Amino acid sequence: MLKLDFHPTGRHFLQIPGPSPVPDRILRAMSYPTIDHRGPEFGALGLKVLDGIKAIFKTAQPVVIYPSSGTGAWEAALCNTLSPGDTVLMFETGHFATLWKKMAENLGLKPEFLGLPGIEGWRRGVQADMIEARLREDTQHTIKAVCVVHNETSTGVTSDIAAVRRAIDAAGHPALFLVDTISGLASADYRHDEWGVDVTVSGSQKGLMLPPGISFNAVSQKAIQASKDAKLPRAFWAWDEIIEMNKGGYWPYTPNTNLLYGLSEALEMIGDEGLEQVFARHQRLAAACRAAVNAWGLEIQCADPAVYSPVLTGVMTPEGVDADAVRKTIYEHFDMSLGTGLGKLKGRMFRIGHLGDCNDLTLMATLTGCEMGLKLSGVKVAGSGVLAAMDYLTSHTAAPALKAAA
Amino acid sequence: MLKLDFHPTGRHFLQIPGPSPVPDRILRAMSYPTIDHRGPEFGALGLKVLDGIKAIFKTAQPVVIYPSSGTGAWEAALCNTLSPGDTVLMFETGHFATLWKKMAENLGLKPEFLGLPGIEGWRRGVQADMIEARLREDTQHTIKAVCVVHNETSTGVTSDIAAVRRAIDAAGHPALFLVDTISGLASADYRHDEWGVDVTVSGSQKGLMLPPGISFNAVSQKAIQASKDAKLPRAFWAWDEIIEMNKGGYWPYTPNTNLLYGLSEALEMIGDEGLEQVFARHQRLAAACRAAVNAWGLEIQCADPAVYSPVLTGVMTPEGVDADAVRKTIYEHFDMSLGTGLGKLKGRMFRIGHLGDCNDLTLMATLTGCEMGLKLSGVKVAGSGVLAAMDYLTSHTAAPALKAAA
Amino acid sequence: MLKLDFHPTGRHFLQIPGPSPVPDRILRAMSYPTIDHRGPEFGALGLKVLDGIKAIFKTAQPVVIYPSSGTGAWEAALCNTLSPGDTVLMFETGHFATLWKKMAENLGLKPEFLGLPGIEGWRRGVQADMIEARLREDTQHTIKAVCVVHNETSTGVTSDIAAVRRAIDAAGHPALFLVDTISGLASADYRHDEWGVDVTVSGSQKGLMLPPGISFNAVSQKAIQASKDAKLPRAFWAWDEIIEMNKGGYWPYTPNTNLLYGLSEALEMIGDEGLEQVFARHQRLAAACRAAVNAWGLEIQCADPAVYSPVLTGVMTPEGVDADAVRKTIYEHFDMSLGTGLGKLKGRMFRIGHLGDCNDLTLMATLTGCEMGLKLSGVKVAGSGVLAAMDYLTSHTAAPALKAAA
Amino acid sequence: MLKLDFHPTGRHFLQIPGPSPVPDRILRAMSYPTIDHRGPEFGALGLKVLDGIKAIFKTAQPVVIYPSSGTGAWEAALCNTLSPGDTVLMFETGHFATLWKKMAENLGLKPEFLGLPGIEGWRRGVQADMIEARLREDTQHTIKAVCVVHNETSTGVTSDIAAVRRAIDAAGHPALFLVDTISGLASADYRHDEWGVDVTVSGSQKGLMLPPGISFNAVSQKAIQASKDAKLPRAFWAWDEIIEMNKGGYWPYTPNTNLLYGLSEALEMIGDEGLEQVFARHQRLAAACRAAVNAWGLEIQCADPAVYSPVLTGVMTPEGVDADAVRKTIYEHFDMSLGTGLGKLKGRMFRIGHLGDCNDLTLMATLTGCEMGLKLSGVKVAGSGVLAAMDYLTSHTAAPALKAAA
Repeated sequence: MLKLDFHPTGRHFLQIPGPSPVPDRILRAMSYPTIDHRGPEFGALGLKVLDGIKAIFKTAQPVVIYPSSGTGAWEAALCNTLSPGDTVLMFETGHFATLWKKMAENLGLKPEFLGLPGIEGWRRGVQADMIEARLREDTQHTIKAVCVVHNETSTGVTSDIAAVRRAIDAAGHPALFLVDTISGLASADYRHDEWGVDVTVSGSQKGLMLPPGISFNAVSQKAIQASKDAKLPRAFWAWDEIIEMNKGGYWPYTPNTNLLYGLSEALEMIGDEGLEQVFARHQRLAAACRAAVNAWGLEIQCADPAVYSPVLTGVMTPEGVDADAVRKTIYEHFDMSLGTGLGKLKGRMFRIGHLGDCNDLTLMATLTGCEMGLKLSGVKVAGSGVLAAMDYLTSHTAAPALKAAA
Repeated sequence: MLKLDFHPTGRHFLQIPGPSPVPDRILRAMSYPTIDHRGPEFGALGLKVLDGIKAIFKTAQPVVIYPSSGTGAWEAALCNTLSPGDTVLMFETGHFATLWKKMAENLGLKPEFLGLPGIEGWRRGVQADMIEARLREDTQHTIKAVCVVHNETSTGVTSDIAAVRRAIDAAGHPALFLVDTISGLASADYRHDEWGVDVTVSGSQKGLMLPPGISFNAVSQKAIQASKDAKLPRAFWAWDEIIEMNKGGYWPYTPNTNLLYGLSEALEMIGDEGLEQVFARHQRLAAACRAAVNAWGLEIQCADPAVYSPVLTGVMTPEGVDADAVRKTIYEHFDMSLGTGLGKLKGRMFRIGHLGDCNDLTLMATLTGCEMGLKLSGVKVAGSGVLAAMDYLTSHTAAPALKAAA
Repeated sequence: MLKLDFHPTGRHFLQIPGPSPVPDRILRAMSYPTIDHRGPEFGALGLKVLDGIKAIFKTAQPVVIYPSSGTGAWEAALCNTLSPGDTVLMFETGHFATLWKKMAENLGLKPEFLGLPGIEGWRRGVQADMIEARLREDTQHTIKAVCVVHNETSTGVTSDIAAVRRAIDAAGHPALFLVDTISGLASADYRHDEWGVDVTVSGSQKGLMLPPGISFNAVSQKAIQASKDAKLPRAFWAWDEIIEMNKGGYWPYTPNTNLLYGLSEALEMIGDEGLEQVFARHQRLAAACRAAVNAWGLEIQCADPAVYSPVLTGVMTPEGVDADAVRKTIYEHFDMSLGTGLGKLKGRMFRIGHLGDCNDLTLMATLTGCEMGLKLSGVKVAGSGVLAAMDYLTSHTAAPALKAAA
Repeated sequence: MLKLDFHPTGRHFLQIPGPSPVPDRILRAMSYPTIDHRGPEFGALGLKVLDGIKAIFKTAQPVVIYPSSGTGAWEAALCNTLSPGDTVLMFETGHFATLWKKMAENLGLKPEFLGLPGIEGWRRGVQADMIEARLREDTQHTIKAVCVVHNETSTGVTSDIAAVRRAIDAAGHPALFLVDTISGLASADYRHDEWGVDVTVSGSQKGLMLPPGISFNAVSQKAIQASKDAKLPRAFWAWDEIIEMNKGGYWPYTPNTNLLYGLSEALEMIGDEGLEQVFARHQRLAAACRAAVNAWGLEIQCADPAVYSPVLTGVMTPEGVDADAVRKTIYEHFDMSLGTGLGKLKGRMFRIGHLGDCNDLTLMATLTGCEMGLKLSGVKVAGSGVLAAMDYLTSHTAAPALKAAA
């Protein structure tokens, strides 16, 4: 039988920036027996989730749901819209932008990777002016797509997608606009239609509070049009047949039914709380977390307050301190998982997730675990981040948001 | 469908002194389909839990398991051993001792209620010398039983049961010895056989980490002998038929099967951690909690450090502060339930549960919720209890108790 | 970890007359984390189930819910209304009527046990005329209560409760009227108010489709009045304090919260289907089951078609065939549990449960298991019961009762 | 909240050839909270399932596990081993072979589609001699891979894979050998290594008794070697990085953790029963099912008894009877899902799944549902299939395979 928690007692604190903790309501919904994916109950479920997910992306266009994790949806976005050898303009915001670029190469595309020098791009997010400048140069329209990451999970920077849209428009460039908001969706405000995004890529295991295993492509009519001429080979990821069958609530191949149960429940939970209220809650918790980091005298990975992530906060450890050793101490002593430093940030920082099914006391537990772990690791801090965060929360009280029972 | 949490997001912190949080492993075990309580699978389950529960009581005698909550097991202890009009000696340790006394009256017994003046008994627990003195006076052996509460859930005082045993022996009195450890079992050390207890009463929803619904009578041979002459009417609670049928792992009437699944899982979890390690964990967390209360400058309900409870800590609010108003603020703002002041302590204190499936960060979350709630309620505290508790935990580190996967 | 099913694969068929199979919806609801039984969420839950359960009993009076199994509710009915030495008139309908009578003796009452000769009462249920005759003789009104079993779980006979009410009225006798419908509630039509019942006893693990662990006393104003003078000692079972606290949705002691989650879900499920539709479904399945038994040429335990039970069918094995050996063969070969013959019927019959969460194919699976088991046991049958039952079901089709998705 | 079953009561019978019913043990395992896919618990889980799955494929080579449904694993098998324009030899065994061929076209391969005339290939499975003949012609070794379906889910034919291996060897042809056993794995005997298969494709929702959402590529060293030169673009599906990271129990991108919990449990269940015993059980139930179809006088889709599927049985309806109308009647009246006729068989047959978590009574329930549904649909049958199946089961008793409790 499955015994997973290596700690003898108490609940594990899963404070990585995703997978985020899955609420009991969703775990229970997912444990409903699997049904026939060709039967009438399934059709009703399919229509419900296909319709409901649109509100989360703020789109009236189709959202394609894949039985895969987010990496698959990256591939789907590229192979449905592009042809071998196409140039795509990407921006180095961090580890995940780098992985997406590597994927583009593997698929036979030619990515151009814009970025700030050193790790500055990993601290400041997308620079729309650089994109605009590059597009203006591209008078031949060689660049077929602009690809950026909205919420960089590796750094805690939430780039300004509307600004990138404006940059593309200002340059008068016809490139498609592809955005990854795998870790931003349902935590940070996102507007697929208003921002003129052609393909938005996302996943289940972050703000949607689901286990990993489903991923999304929200599309535009322009993207669908592009897919008719795109030459990258595709079958599993091909939009057309899926969108066609989705009209009845079904899929051309077997969807992962039990995760769709969970998605149905997640959509109800988010609807009950209100999407804007969900965003406000994330902003408030993120601010309290940053208050703690500031009080510790540690540096926040994101160097530009305008693009602080509401999803996670990257904490840089002092020179000479191995961030992963701190994480290990915290894991062993306090049964809490934090995110590791990825790529260029390996060992230099850890990441605190405060997304999804999170509340004030979960955040405070997290911060006490960090503060105690820093102490046990011998890291001197300037002051108590825990006190600072409590100050923030008590001076920015959320109106008690009690629900009545249904 | 059932929607219970009145807060829109995040996990509720159930920090009352029971029901304590039920671990996912136990909730999952309980959701196994109900089986035939007369079939062979059930017999195997019955034998397993009937045997396993003995180790928790530290007894080699039968433990009777009832499909009822703890109050029923109080009644069972009395009606199996006593006759109408019998005198029983009880000690006023708090609200639950008072309720048990009231039950004795309702059942037609004559309780004598020893106690310290005012609410001193509610702060110091059982005084064994007073019991000894009273028993010495009772040269006619009119007193048929001594009944005390081990862990007073209303106050956070864990009385010295061995001392009461010595007092009875010193007085050379033949009275039965009945002990309630409903909230102590599996959290505080308890020794049914070594301490010569005749009936130990307990329940499922505390240290055993189960939902409420099963309760226990651990018995002695002397108690069984007494039951043959006891005249209080009884049927549902009668030990004899249950103990007889338990030999095969069955019950004379329908047991609550799904809670027994949970009990089976709980016994495995406790066995995996080690019972003595469970006790040490409770002591450590309780000490950290008291460090916080002391730092706040608030008074702990238990006035005698020798009998501090490892299960819960009673926190007295300053004169003029309604403890229930503080609790309400904490509930509404921070989605945490604390225990109310009961009986004589109504409005004067609140109770923090740190029992069962609890770990360092859960306790710290709890203390931050209290500290922020006190602030929002306008209660001035001397210093940060949160900092004091973190100091305690980091200077008394538990050896990282990681398990290997099974 | 808990591994309960002794068969290697496939779902167990739990076709005993209770506990009945618990639907997944209810098991999932029960696995919601335990909450504070003194908090506001609990109050909302309590009010919901206390109100909802009334419709099932068809009463406007209070229904007391106990955290115990049904045997406890038997005791509650007696000890709340009667005094030591009171005479109660009971009727021998089978094993459970006999057990209730034995309980009455254990509690110090004086039961008179009416009955037909031999096991005739175990085949024909309550004879209202015998009750009327006995009450007419009792001109001194020595008899304080008439106690009968509505649906005898040991025999499959559902007695006519309205007829007993008429008998008491015809005799002009003031006795209280206590009825056990532990296995009848929510499967067979039952009308607490219309039939003038003073205390109705029931349990959770039958028609309500819950695991065992909660039980009920529906009361009348006359019963409440009687409880004020009743002298049997009582505390855990005492109605008054429970009914008082129930007004706010709470209980005086810890209720078994997780089973109440299940009750909430069960009430919704029954409400969705419609109570009268639930009864009609039980009648149809029971008739199909009897068609099978008749085709086998075996005798049905209930000898009076007017009182066939919609809950279960007792099947008498031919002379010389040990019914329990047949049951064992069926259990081992076909992973199905059937009810044993109880008391006077030990080894002479087995019982097929067709109650609660049952549908056509579950019944048919059950009957194929019986037919194959009879064959493997060497019992010659007259014809195929399976064919007869299929004939019945296809010639009495339920209108396809499809629901739309919520 | 999620309410999925359109029928008011009782358990749905999911008798399609996959997704098959998911056992409660697996649903419970899947509801364990999601953990950090980079943490130590996950590594232990990963190593366990990666090792355990090999025994199911009967291979010592790596098995790649994808967070996708089976269609994705088809694509993975092709794009890891082949280059644009490569010729692949496929065999028309039914609808799924046809879909795989269509996928090959979509990916830019050149499939040759061997087959018997009309729908004969849909009734007889792979003809190894035809493959051998074609390979012998291919002296230039233009054919890069032979792709066949082991268990055709659309027809109920289980082709002889060893014979195809012998055919390839006899022809002395170097083509890769790719086999789809999506619906055969863990139900029908399968030997990846012994049969010299280079890539075996499978999925979770059939014999493994899991919900859909994970899929597999078991590989050979030859396949891995081929992947180094294969030119189809790939990223998500690329084996190399996955196999490398799997050495530590991890994945390069987020795996679908909760389904891996389920896989861990499924492997234990299969191990407990014994893989060969699992196969024997499937064979026995399939034989009973065919006995029923024969008794009805209906034709079995598979026309060659040597390749009857142990997983499902295709039932042809008489000329003029719309099989889907029969299925609809059965669904509406008896709450059972059967498989539809696919592709060329649309409306001509239905499919009965008897795979995975199935036992004797579940099969019998299924057959009674079919027999009653045929009657209600006005289909005349020759005799009772139900009686025939019962005869088969009772004259071929499985030794009662009771387990002892763990």
